[in-house]
Amino acid sequence: MRQYETFELTFTGSEPEGSRALVDLQAEFTLAGETKRVRGFYAGGGVYKVRFYPSAAGGCSWKVWGTVSGAGEEFCEPAVSHGMVRASGRHFKYDDGTWYRPFGTTVYALVHQERALTDTTMETLRKAPFNKVRFCVFPKHYDFNHNEPESYPFEKTDGKWDVHKPVAAYWEALEARIREMDAMGIQGDLILFHPYDRWGFSRFSMEDSFVYLDYLLRRLSAMPNLWWSLANEYDLMPNYKWENWEEFAGFVAEHDPYGHCLSNHNCMAYWDFTQKEITHCCIQDVNVNEVPELWERYGKPVVFDECRYEGNIIHGWGNISGRELVRRFWTAVCCGGYCTHGETFYSEDEVLWWARGGVLKGESPVRIAFLKEIVDSLPGPLEFMGEGSGGYTEGQLLAMKEKGASEEFRKSFFLTAMLNMPEKQVKAFLTKERVAFGHCGQEAYLKFLERQCAAVTRMNLPEEGRYRVEIIDTWEMTRQTVMENACGSVQIDLPGREDMAVLAIRMG
Amino acid sequence: MRQYETFELTFTGSEPEGSRALVDLQAEFTLAGETKRVRGFYAGGGVYKVRFYPSAAGGCSWKVWGTVSGAGEEFCEPAVSHGMVRASGRHFKYDDGTWYRPFGTTVYALVHQERALTDTTMETLRKAPFNKVRFCVFPKHYDFNHNEPESYPFEKTDGKWDVHKPVAAYWEALEARIREMDAMGIQGDLILFHPYDRWGFSRFSMEDSFVYLDYLLRRLSAMPNLWWSLANEYDLMPNYKWENWEEFAGFVAEHDPYGHCLSNHNCMAYWDFTQKEITHCCIQDVNVNEVPELWERYGKPVVFDECRYEGNIIHGWGNISGRELVRRFWTAVCCGGYCTHGETFYSEDEVLWWARGGVLKGESPVRIAFLKEIVDSLPGPLEFMGEGSGGYTEGQLLAMKEKGASEEFRKSFFLTAMLNMPEKQVKAFLTKERVAFGHCGQEAYLKFLERQCAAVTRMNLPEEGRYRVEIIDTWEMTRQTVMENACGSVQIDLPGREDMAVLAIRMG
Repeated sequence: MRQYETFELTFTGSEPEGSRALVDLQAEFTLAGETKRVRGFYAGGGVYKVRFYPSAAGGCSWKVWGTVSGAGEEFCEPAVSHGMVRASGRHFKYDDGTWYRPFGTTVYALVHQERALTDTTMETLRKAPFNKVRFCVFPKHYDFNHNEPESYPFEKTDGKWDVHKPVAAYWEALEARIREMDAMGIQGDLILFHPYDRWGFSRFSMEDSFVYLDYLLRRLSAMPNLWWSLANEYDLMPNYKWENWEEFAGFVAEHDPYGHCLSNHNCMAYWDFTQKEITHCCIQDVNVNEVPELWERYGKPVVFDECRYEGNIIHGWGNISGRELVRRFWTAVCCGGYCTHGETFYSEDEVLWWARGGVLKGESPVRIAFLKEIVDSLPGPLEFMGEGSGGYTEGQLLAMKEKGASEEFRKSFFLTAMLNMPEKQVKAFLTKERVAFGHCGQEAYLKFLERQCAAVTRMNLPEEGRYRVEIIDTWEMTRQTVMENACGSVQIDLPGREDMAVLAIRMG
Repeated sequence: MRQYETFELTFTGSEPEGSRALVDLQAEFTLAGETKRVRGFYAGGGVYKVRFYPSAAGGCSWKVWGTVSGAGEEFCEPAVSHGMVRASGRHFKYDDGTWYRPFGTTVYALVHQERALTDTTMETLRKAPFNKVRFCVFPKHYDFNHNEPESYPFEKTDGKWDVHKPVAAYWEALEARIREMDAMGIQGDLILFHPYDRWGFSRFSMEDSFVYLDYLLRRLSAMPNLWWSLANEYDLMPNYKWENWEEFAGFVAEHDPYGHCLSNHNCMAYWDFTQKEITHCCIQDVNVNEVPELWERYGKPVVFDECRYEGNIIHGWGNISGRELVRRFWTAVCCGGYCTHGETFYSEDEVLWWARGGVLKGESPVRIAFLKEIVDSLPGPLEFMGEGSGGYTEGQLLAMKEKGASEEFRKSFFLTAMLNMPEKQVKAFLTKERVAFGHCGQEAYLKFLERQCAAVTRMNLPEEGRYRVEIIDTWEMTRQTVMENACGSVQIDLPGREDMAVLAIRMG
């Protein structure tokens, strides 16, 4: 047993008489003064397993009861890895306190391809900058997704999927891929339901849905590198109502003993991320500079898990340029949020990265790596600071419209004029004016100028600090130090091109 | 006297005893069975003038009374020009029925520069594609605008601007430039008030404001190529309240005998274009694909008179790339609206086109000319048609949210899901999904793909027509015919780059 790594107990017994999903198998682990109740699962072939995620080091005692039983003691060795990722304020941390900054990608049907293709995908991921992958439990049917998976999560009974009969081969293959991801430092953002279906997995009864979730949570919860995404595009699934998704969130949170990251992905209407079980905002939208408003509304980390994909297919969501996607990453990150990659270049073999994996063809990954390297070098997460009128948030303005202007606003005719806008126009104005400008306390300031081709910009640095100022060409991936020992209001000459950034780092 | 051209009567008399702006001078012109009452003005040096814009040809009788008087008859020759521009539905027409498609530019302080510079500006305009220029009556004080004009519209009395003492030299120079524009086919979009002021022209009393407008309307109303823009950024002028602008609109409409185009330009909150005197929407914003929503709300032609300028200055409104500005033109036009150019490249002599004129340096004008040539070749104005979910409008969706889904929506789960979005999210979703796709009846279809790098697109053409289909690279300015005699649903291969358009023109 080692801290932050899945511990597994294996028992043999007889085949379950009823459900092979909902077996009677409980366990308790007592470690570092805390007792955790978990449930085990039937792994097939007369084998029962109980898994546990130890969040501390030290002596651990366990007991198991139900269909099989036992008890024992282990010494839990201190961690050699970071542990699970959890939301921490508006950002994420591993269990060991290290900041985790998601730079995700998307391979929806990753585990439903031929082994050789998935091997290629994993090899690609090994060299790519991504530390989170969104992928589905259920196979996908959609444009360019017509192949049959090698196995399914469940057997059929009388021609109908039987959630009480999990297919061990499927789940073992899934787990193997999750463990491979873990070895690469990648979080698996596992999508539990989705609408792109020709098999019937999107049309379970509520009862079957809960059985499926129960089994999945027994098997997978102890794996450290998993997140739960209730759905991909929950609002395109006629089978489930809004209340059902609330129930799923509650069920997952109750049956996952460890509190993995949990959210729900929209096509149109955002999920209600204020729901207590939801750990972060998972958003499909292109408004990547609205982080401050999303923070105001939801108070949780903001991940733009789908802001359109680099590619060339006919659909508008799958044909932005690599440059545009890189720009969205920079904008989201400099506003204090996070962004997720996807790639949809048409190919005759219908292997498009976003669904089936394979190799990456686009121009964005190397530049996302460049951005990741920069923000990983910062001492902490970026908080939005903005500048000018776009530095205010919709909530601030609406509050002043209702309760009266602040002193700062009363002193400025320009700011007061902002309060005369109709409520409906406020957010569009602010996000139009917004500068993607983040900071780590007084340690670092990172301003991304997006489409502005300014020949000059300014930065107001603390008078008492001394900063090294760099100009970054986010597309050409160059960094040039233009000032050292800078402080106060500094003016920085720029080349007058799109996609430039300025980084000021406190020296010494 | 010639139809559509300013006719001017000149009288001599004694210097006015009181106001030199509000002289007692009336006239009536009877032409083609219609009698028009107009007012004259004092032009200085004992000269009084009465001007008239004849909208028809034929015999014309006139009489003048007041400080000077007279009567006479003229034969009004048939037009050799197009006449005034007026709103016609959601578009514009000249008085002779020809469509007018505004492709404007911006030179705010055009008439407040040294003569040589303004001459250069006019020479630049002669070669440029622009057929509308936004410029101010009053001089401008702002970044890069520190020079003193050669003359002012009024004299001072006791150190204070005296609106009863117009300066003939100023107004004559202004008129000369307007006439030069007319000769080039350019509409002068004359800005009557603006906030960028160190002289005091933005702080007139309401009484003085009306005197100024009265004088201006007596002098200029008979010039065919003028539009009235009540303000540049009305909402940044602390001197005037919302009601004052309503009064100005009413006053201008009442005292302009010919009904020139009239609107009001915002910084933040759009003017209320539903006001009856307002002829079109004059908008500062970047939402150039919201034409359908603006049509719904205001029912008038939509002109994005400021959507940021091509340039490299520090301000976000003045440093977009030429490519981005050209893209906004294409988007606005293919959605059925119009767009206006401006250019702000920093120069040591502080001569930036957007305010002081001079020469154009950017990459957009030649490409705006390319777009203009294409749309001028179409048989009529472009109406929005869109495609997919972005083809619906906010008003349509909100109405269905309130009153229930249409049959088309009830049949589609995807469309129904659109109605589940919170009201506040609807417009952002629709404009994100929107394709800039316009048509002239069944004669022409023009789809602009903006940032989409699609390798293929589709167009649904009428089955009964036969169309020539062209691929247009809006940036490289190339046109390539890829199909002839096309009809029905056609698939068109594209090069997978940004800024491509597809044009289908009915053949024969």
